[in-house]
Amino acid sequence: MKLRELAERLDCRLEGDGEVEIRRVAGIDAACPGDVTFLANPKYTSALASTRASAVIARGDAPAGPCAMLRTDEPYLAFARAVGLLGPNSRPPVGVHPLAAIAASATIGRDVSVGAFVAIGDGARIGDRTIIFPNVTIGPGANVGDDCVIHYGFVRRKDGTHEKIPQVATVVIEDDVELGANSTVDRPAVGETRIKAGTKIDNLVQIAHGVTVGRNVLMAAQVGVAGSTEIEDDVMFGGQVGVGGHLTIGKGAVAVGQSGVTNSLEPGAMVAGYPAIDGKEWRKASVIFRRLPELKKRIEELEARVAELTSRKP
Amino acid sequence: MKLRELAERLDCRLEGDGEVEIRRVAGIDAACPGDVTFLANPKYTSALASTRASAVIARGDAPAGPCAMLRTDEPYLAFARAVGLLGPNSRPPVGVHPLAAIAASATIGRDVSVGAFVAIGDGARIGDRTIIFPNVTIGPGANVGDDCVIHYGFVRRKDGTHEKIPQVATVVIEDDVELGANSTVDRPAVGETRIKAGTKIDNLVQIAHGVTVGRNVLMAAQVGVAGSTEIEDDVMFGGQVGVGGHLTIGKGAVAVGQSGVTNSLEPGAMVAGYPAIDGKEWRKASVIFRRLPELKKRIEELEARVAELTSRKP
Amino acid sequence: MKLRELAERLDCRLEGDGEVEIRRVAGIDAACPGDVTFLANPKYTSALASTRASAVIARGDAPAGPCAMLRTDEPYLAFARAVGLLGPNSRPPVGVHPLAAIAASATIGRDVSVGAFVAIGDGARIGDRTIIFPNVTIGPGANVGDDCVIHYGFVRRKDGTHEKIPQVATVVIEDDVELGANSTVDRPAVGETRIKAGTKIDNLVQIAHGVTVGRNVLMAAQVGVAGSTEIEDDVMFGGQVGVGGHLTIGKGAVAVGQSGVTNSLEPGAMVAGYPAIDGKEWRKASVIFRRLPELKKRIEELEARVAELTSRKP
Repeated sequence: MKLRELAERLDCRLEGDGEVEIRRVAGIDAACPGDVTFLANPKYTSALASTRASAVIARGDAPAGPCAMLRTDEPYLAFARAVGLLGPNSRPPVGVHPLAAIAASATIGRDVSVGAFVAIGDGARIGDRTIIFPNVTIGPGANVGDDCVIHYGFVRRKDGTHEKIPQVATVVIEDDVELGANSTVDRPAVGETRIKAGTKIDNLVQIAHGVTVGRNVLMAAQVGVAGSTEIEDDVMFGGQVGVGGHLTIGKGAVAVGQSGVTNSLEPGAMVAGYPAIDGKEWRKASVIFRRLPELKKRIEELEARVAELTSRKP
Repeated sequence: MKLRELAERLDCRLEGDGEVEIRRVAGIDAACPGDVTFLANPKYTSALASTRASAVIARGDAPAGPCAMLRTDEPYLAFARAVGLLGPNSRPPVGVHPLAAIAASATIGRDVSVGAFVAIGDGARIGDRTIIFPNVTIGPGANVGDDCVIHYGFVRRKDGTHEKIPQVATVVIEDDVELGANSTVDRPAVGETRIKAGTKIDNLVQIAHGVTVGRNVLMAAQVGVAGSTEIEDDVMFGGQVGVGGHLTIGKGAVAVGQSGVTNSLEPGAMVAGYPAIDGKEWRKASVIFRRLPELKKRIEELEARVAELTSRKP
Repeated sequence: MKLRELAERLDCRLEGDGEVEIRRVAGIDAACPGDVTFLANPKYTSALASTRASAVIARGDAPAGPCAMLRTDEPYLAFARAVGLLGPNSRPPVGVHPLAAIAASATIGRDVSVGAFVAIGDGARIGDRTIIFPNVTIGPGANVGDDCVIHYGFVRRKDGTHEKIPQVATVVIEDDVELGANSTVDRPAVGETRIKAGTKIDNLVQIAHGVTVGRNVLMAAQVGVAGSTEIEDDVMFGGQVGVGGHLTIGKGAVAVGQSGVTNSLEPGAMVAGYPAIDGKEWRKASVIFRRLPELKKRIEELEARVAELTSRKP
């Protein structure tokens, strides 16, 4: 695509040669001739002088680079659009791969993409436009909403009890949910495991039976949530956080990476550590933790001096 | 099924209309007309008045609900049986899916269920009635017992050494073992990795090469056990527990969630924290951890007062 | 193979009957007649007397066992060679399994092994002699080097931004890398995620978008590395270590199991704990952590005695 045409389609003001052919998008350091890149963060302005890109998308007040400039108030947004125009198509093709195994009683929505070696069980329902990547297993009866992206390995039935009663419950994944690779969502004995709309769950996450995850929740990789816990909307968990069972995590609560949450959290709480406590409190205590040997020595010195003082004649 | 017939088959005393048609089982809150539910825990008695179920299984002393009652001394057990009678069949069909890849030299037991896209390697042996869910890989030479349920991703060969000697050892999974989704069991260089009968391992668990897991062990999700460790019978690990290599974890020992076990444990030990120490000791120390800033201040005050006392004339 | 021939091929001195037929390799405790085993660690000398093996590879100064001996200065190395001669062939056959799904635009090197139900996306490149085990998914555009072993689940595209720009970046796995089962490597929005030559990554590890992993790095199972972090050569992470985003982990740094690395590390650093601090410092502080209840008591006693001293007449 000619740079002039790209500028028009991105609604940018062109400075420089509009006849240059643009073939790719790239980061400012890695760009080569033929690439368009962007400068949104002033921190990277110094990289501008040495970029090999053929064009840079930047604000009006950014200095000119050694190439053509595309001026806009929102360079990042314009770059994202450029990626859509020039980048490889990241959406897999619509359709069901001939090497997928779909149960006859499953319901598949419109315009879905189902990859090779995907197994979809009896009675499962897959919503419109949802993407299921290769090698994913969707268990019987699971209900996946519209516009979801499922990279992961398994939605499965599981005993939530020692009595091993057969499973009668379901997993519901609402619209616009993203589940990372090799994450697992367990099906409860009775009731449901539900992941509400707009939630993004990273790789290798474990959601146990009977958990409810609210809307627009973010979970980083390797988080584990034990059975029957209710996570309200807008909660954020850092990587490797562990959350106990039968708890309520209030709306908007945040647990930083590796926290171990053993009690319910109030809405808006920010916690850290194991057992997880208020984040500020935890930080202060952690700073002193590494000084424990010094504190112990100071106590010993105090004991010696107090003993000496005590032995003085009153 | 008519409620009268269900009552007979569950060995319950019927109170109310036996002609009602029962089609499903459900939890007390989620139940609709046509469903049977149960009340086992007195805590949920308040939910009884508002249930929409057509019948409730409950003890003789529980109040009557707004529907028919099925009376029994063991309501939970009766409900579990009802699930077996009315619930969807949770056991996948017996047989090998046409899209499974089974090595010619593998031995497959009687009445097994092997799902789509399951790969079973050379010389592997799968016991009778074992269920292998879709997309599971069983490595060459692995030995899986009778009545096992394998949800997981991989039994693999792996070098336990830097010399990268070829693998000559095996993984043995005894009878009645359950392995969760995306859990991994490594094959050692020499010897075996063994998971003994009746053990239940949850999702995303790592069992390294040469580990022995005893009988009736329970491991929650995301546990990791390093190489050559021996775990005796009846041990319980909470979620995200890490266990070092070459240790012995004594019979019935318990490590709570997120513990990091760096030393061998005595039979019956209960540990917590990292490094894992006696659970009671850990709990007491943890309570004081968050008070470290206050303790430090008290030490500083003591130091000031002792300095003042010291400076007094004796 | 006759023991005499084996001795010649292993360059060992034979003591005993060279006509014995050797069929297998095994550990010293598990060996049966027909097996060759080895004794490299003097700790296991006591097992020698009771071995049922037909031959033991050992140093010249080791005592003779109840069977033939193969003498060499490097018994472990000789055993590793014996495994290569006698053990089952651990390398899967060269070739692409008929039940693999390879995109037409993917490039597959010479002498690769691609297992059943492997999905390889558009434009991906697989180097020579690389082994890809069954049920692995290699995302579009991923670049896997020569002599790699991929046990794992997914190389995937992923948004590194909230703007959800389409992906234009890539994952590069250099030569001689080993990735464990169910590990995940994310593709960034712009730039690349790269794993350099000779690095070994265990099972269930998460490598986020834009991470660079240096040469000859070792990561144990269940490690998680957040986005854009740079890990230099020869770094070692114990099991379940978590590493924050946008950090630099210096050459040869070591983080012990379950550490939470929240800051960049100097080359050669050795850290532990969460937040990870110098390992020696952490160990000293940890020892005192469990004595916190005792220290608190000592502070209380000091306070009482100082109060008493203060109340004395000067």
